[in-house]
Amino acid sequence: MFQLDERLQNDTIVMGDFSMSRLLLMNDSTYPWFILVPRRKDVTEVYQLDEQDQQELWQESALLGRWMSSAFEFAKLNIGALGNVVSQLHIHHVGRRHNDPCWPGPMWGQHPPKPYAPEEIEKIKQQISIDLAGFLGG
Amino acid sequence: MFQLDERLQNDTIVMGDFSMSRLLLMNDSTYPWFILVPRRKDVTEVYQLDEQDQQELWQESALLGRWMSSAFEFAKLNIGALGNVVSQLHIHHVGRRHNDPCWPGPMWGQHPPKPYAPEEIEKIKQQISIDLAGFLGG
Repeated sequence: MFQLDERLQNDTIVMGDFSMSRLLLMNDSTYPWFILVPRRKDVTEVYQLDEQDQQELWQESALLGRWMSSAFEFAKLNIGALGNVVSQLHIHHVGRRHNDPCWPGPMWGQHPPKPYAPEEIEKIKQQISIDLAGFLGG
Repeated sequence: MFQLDERLQNDTIVMGDFSMSRLLLMNDSTYPWFILVPRRKDVTEVYQLDEQDQQELWQESALLGRWMSSAFEFAKLNIGALGNVVSQLHIHHVGRRHNDPCWPGPMWGQHPPKPYAPEEIEKIKQQISIDLAGFLGG
């Protein structure tokens, strides 16, 4: 059975489930930062998913990226599947701005996260539930 | 017409063309590091590609990742589409090892590259031409 890695669970807030992957909001208000976790057991690399799962995952990634670019202001979307620390397959989607603290370098592990206020999380959750209704359950 | 960004051209060696994307070897022997560049004009984000192109790109990414894991020894594949410096859409594929100089952090922009010797490049090129024959033209 799919189970979310404990560290991912601690660092993020669940926004809902796409048909393939769980959508998480990174609890760091420095960037618009979302993570997709394929709801499959024991997968660490994209190529380990079967073809159908891969296709769905990347469709959800494109959907998320397109939505992020409409919902937030940023210059460049960064997509990354690293997994050097948390091996459970998860795909970062981060909106990068010219004035963010790490631009133009990667932001992983660079600065301590700035947690959201509860009402900010609620606001994002609500916007997602409107904009992505029909795609998200959970 | 598709044209490879000048900076990518300077930092890499062309290994061939998949049906969708150009396969580049990063000229840094520190890591097994390959880059896919969709052969499309003026694209900076994955979600800007049409559905069919996206699907092909990720199929080629999975093919590359699987091949890399068979041809090189490493602990974790890192996949990244950043583009903060070079905006032309390009997808990094980097084999990360526990003893590499940046593990477990990201390796972008961290250490000066260690260029390959010409015979090392030739060896990789040859292995690719054998292992990926049928997928690569160019």
